[in-house]
Amino acid sequence: MTLTLYSYWRSTAAYRVRIALNLKGLDYETKAVHLVKNGGEQHQAGYREVNPQGLVPSLVTEDGHVITQSMAILEYLEEYQPAPSILPEDAISRAHCRAAAQTVVSDIHPLDNLRVLQYLKKQGWQQDRVDTWYAHWIHEGFKALEQQASSGKTQFMHADYPCISDICLVAQIYNANRFQVPLNAYPRLTEIYQHCMVLDEFIKASPEQQPDAPEVLA
Amino acid sequence: MTLTLYSYWRSTAAYRVRIALNLKGLDYETKAVHLVKNGGEQHQAGYREVNPQGLVPSLVTEDGHVITQSMAILEYLEEYQPAPSILPEDAISRAHCRAAAQTVVSDIHPLDNLRVLQYLKKQGWQQDRVDTWYAHWIHEGFKALEQQASSGKTQFMHADYPCISDICLVAQIYNANRFQVPLNAYPRLTEIYQHCMVLDEFIKASPEQQPDAPEVLA
Repeated sequence: MTLTLYSYWRSTAAYRVRIALNLKGLDYETKAVHLVKNGGEQHQAGYREVNPQGLVPSLVTEDGHVITQSMAILEYLEEYQPAPSILPEDAISRAHCRAAAQTVVSDIHPLDNLRVLQYLKKQGWQQDRVDTWYAHWIHEGFKALEQQASSGKTQFMHADYPCISDICLVAQIYNANRFQVPLNAYPRLTEIYQHCMVLDEFIKASPEQQPDAPEVLA
Repeated sequence: MTLTLYSYWRSTAAYRVRIALNLKGLDYETKAVHLVKNGGEQHQAGYREVNPQGLVPSLVTEDGHVITQSMAILEYLEEYQPAPSILPEDAISRAHCRAAAQTVVSDIHPLDNLRVLQYLKKQGWQQDRVDTWYAHWIHEGFKALEQQASSGKTQFMHADYPCISDICLVAQIYNANRFQVPLNAYPRLTEIYQHCMVLDEFIKASPEQQPDAPEVLA
């Protein structure tokens, strides 16, 4: 048995887990859940049995346990295979790293993900109003992150190797680029992003590299 | 020196940290940040120096480090003082516990917190439309949590002692009650809530028990 990841190529949360699996050097099988086709495969009974919340990602462990929520999966992977670590070595840096990750995971992404944008559109919001909402939460979070990230002297956000804060940042920057949010106010975040995106573990986790990405992108 | 918590009596995220501090038996000093008065003290320069994101809670450690984000603070407290633990003993239960906590922290609360409801009101939404939004995300999250919580045989959600999933649940149920969202579809969550609310550590962390709560509630 190996690890199985229920993933969608363009899901920010699944992207985080793919990076972590690659950094840990763990093999895994991808099962694609298409979040848009047929009204969203994540809402169908088959996937709801795996994850009753109908969100991706879900990780199935070697002995068949299902773990949901990207942050819980990242912490699990750190316990399952401690080296190489995706957390800084000292307790205060670990706390800052987890806090930066949560700034993305709980203050930006939940407001800007698919199900929320769909809700707002159903309320009659036009695309420009949705885009303003989207950009607002990106900027609120990135402003704080940029300030936090600039105080450090490490190559990545909290260490000289990539940690969970970098993982969450990279996936969120991908998403911001997709929505054409300008990021020139965040030079330190952009620099960290560039440090990550020369690494194979990050490149191979990219949405366009996934087996379920549309061929036209390949 | 002791621990200092920047808190607001009715903040769900600060409530989580207060419970954890009490469960760990850690003394701390409360510094109140009023989220509504004067346009919100969290936006003022004084507090932005502590936490550039302008959110509560922030924990100041014994040696003066500032830690933000409730989940990062809970994990820090678990490392700082491991006993009594607020995480289950085995790795799979720990992962399920962290996932349940994240369901509250990243799938319910970010959509229903003050700054988001204020944004929607500025967009012209009337109270009933905001209330529908609020209840929608509570039900989406609680439906999944109820299903997950019902499969366990432990007294609390993931162990026979209260863990971070219970902490997050209790604070969110307080908030749901405040917005008068009916919770009768969630008997297991309600039962866990009741198990928690007979414990001194939870009672003393309650919003109404805080030094900055309005006197009329006392």
